[in-house]
Amino acid sequence: MTTKIHKSTLKEILAQVEAIDTDTLIIIADQRLWELYRNELPLDKIAGKKIILRTTPSGEGVKNFDEFASCSEYLLDKGVHRKAHLIAFGGGSLSDFAGFVASTLLRGIPWSVIPTTLLSMIDASIGGKTAINSKVGKNLIGAFHKPENIWLNVDFLNTLPEEELVNGYGEVIKYAFLNKDISSHLKVKKFDLNELIFKCAEYKLDLTEKDFKESGIRKCLNLGHTLGHAIEKIYSLPHGEAVFWGIALVLEIFQNGDFKSELKEYAKQLGIHERPVPWYKKTFPIDKIMNFISKDKKMLTKSSLEFVLVEKVGKIKYQSIPLDELEIKLESMKEKLSDYSF
Amino acid sequence: MTTKIHKSTLKEILAQVEAIDTDTLIIIADQRLWELYRNELPLDKIAGKKIILRTTPSGEGVKNFDEFASCSEYLLDKGVHRKAHLIAFGGGSLSDFAGFVASTLLRGIPWSVIPTTLLSMIDASIGGKTAINSKVGKNLIGAFHKPENIWLNVDFLNTLPEEELVNGYGEVIKYAFLNKDISSHLKVKKFDLNELIFKCAEYKLDLTEKDFKESGIRKCLNLGHTLGHAIEKIYSLPHGEAVFWGIALVLEIFQNGDFKSELKEYAKQLGIHERPVPWYKKTFPIDKIMNFISKDKKMLTKSSLEFVLVEKVGKIKYQSIPLDELEIKLESMKEKLSDYSF
Repeated sequence: MTTKIHKSTLKEILAQVEAIDTDTLIIIADQRLWELYRNELPLDKIAGKKIILRTTPSGEGVKNFDEFASCSEYLLDKGVHRKAHLIAFGGGSLSDFAGFVASTLLRGIPWSVIPTTLLSMIDASIGGKTAINSKVGKNLIGAFHKPENIWLNVDFLNTLPEEELVNGYGEVIKYAFLNKDISSHLKVKKFDLNELIFKCAEYKLDLTEKDFKESGIRKCLNLGHTLGHAIEKIYSLPHGEAVFWGIALVLEIFQNGDFKSELKEYAKQLGIHERPVPWYKKTFPIDKIMNFISKDKKMLTKSSLEFVLVEKVGKIKYQSIPLDELEIKLESMKEKLSDYSF
Repeated sequence: MTTKIHKSTLKEILAQVEAIDTDTLIIIADQRLWELYRNELPLDKIAGKKIILRTTPSGEGVKNFDEFASCSEYLLDKGVHRKAHLIAFGGGSLSDFAGFVASTLLRGIPWSVIPTTLLSMIDASIGGKTAINSKVGKNLIGAFHKPENIWLNVDFLNTLPEEELVNGYGEVIKYAFLNKDISSHLKVKKFDLNELIFKCAEYKLDLTEKDFKESGIRKCLNLGHTLGHAIEKIYSLPHGEAVFWGIALVLEIFQNGDFKSELKEYAKQLGIHERPVPWYKKTFPIDKIMNFISKDKKMLTKSSLEFVLVEKVGKIKYQSIPLDELEIKLESMKEKLSDYSF
């Protein structure tokens, strides 16, 4: 089964959902988004099918064991079967959650996504990684379960707070480093955001189709994520923004700033080049970063980390670094990193 | 990945678990069984690996959302990674549960099973169907996740209550109808139980490898299960025993008793031919059966049921029957079914 990515208007989305070959539609929608779009995109009014609607708390708060249990029980109680089709409507947290519900309901039913944030359009909704969070860390309970359809509609971004948009730009920049075509597109003076989103989504889809269980080439998608996750946690930053700083750090630490001008150009195009570093006017937090990395057990097989580095735009390489060496390296660059700016 | 079935002594099991290519072993063991075997099979004493042991409530009680959450949180807190290997030690409920935990932990880690009941040796542990229960019904939340190893050891059956053994015989008889080789083996006067178990397990494994997601040939394994599930629920019978009566009913209702003598021969060999029907001296419970079937939404796509019938030993056929026709048929046979005996 291959995921199909559609660029669709709201009307087209509705028609395509209606055309899904099932007699039972399960809609799992982010409560806040549902209130905004229930009239423009009345998924619960589709005729000729049984519709089960479940709205959930907005954001990351939905991704826990309790919501998983209560949502599953709710759907089962309403009556579902293996050919029911589940539609996830919301951002990345919602699709992570709803996809996990789809993957375990009756041991897996088909599902599709209508992502409503930039981050979920180009990243979270693609590739079939679904999950809920554990007390120990994020996304530690989940499944690989690919959606059948992903509907992209740039209009959803209009209702998105500025910060949410910025949040997605970190991942856009990651794709620009990974893929020459995306990089070129991003450098066009007035680029077409709709097209850029579609290119990023297709690129990720292609990678994940080739490497479904994340053993090989898909690992390049971790560019900026190792240090990014630490920064995300330490400063409670949105994921995409943390990835942006994660990329900046990797380029600075392991590549002597070779790609800094490239990064700056991308950031300028997206209008985020004037954001101060999260550790602005403070010392770069080496202790906290090392502490986070040592605790983030999922990342560690033994005691070294694999970093994704940029060889040139469109080509990446890997470098494995023992934890103690990483710490020495960071210490040696402490001053330079503390003063990082464009 | 193909599951390997081993016939092993306890010592061999220990050596083979020790040889698994991982630095971290997770043992999920049925509390009662663990107390019985922790000295003879000291899985927690294997040297050179990190061992995480989690014992769980015995029986079906473990298969719920709360245990799933608390077990997953426990394991994550102890520190696991994607190459950790999970060992399930116990009966069918335990392996259903532990397999589901393995399938969702870090989006899936490898696992193996040491089944301790006849039913789990020949059925539950094989084929990768894992699950927990919902309030709405059994096994409604789960995943397909194949174990790497299944270790068969007939000695575990010695500590099994007589009823548990009888419980497995229903499934043995199912296999005898499905496979000529198993049928012949079962008819040998003093058959080798160890070998019979191995044959049943290998037969099911072969079927499930060919048809992992239960779309095609694997459906033959449902022989006796449609009515069996209803009987199981109505009389609170163990699963395997209910399957035995489910088979008897299917042969009687749809096949005019053609295979009754065959069934009787199998039952005699296993020493269960003198068990009274669950509705002994009562009217055959048509209302309750129809009521159960209508509520068991998983089984129904529209309003008809697919029954597995025996064409000849070793060959099955399918018959789809609308619910209302089934009811009429049962009513017409009410007296005959009420008086059923060998």
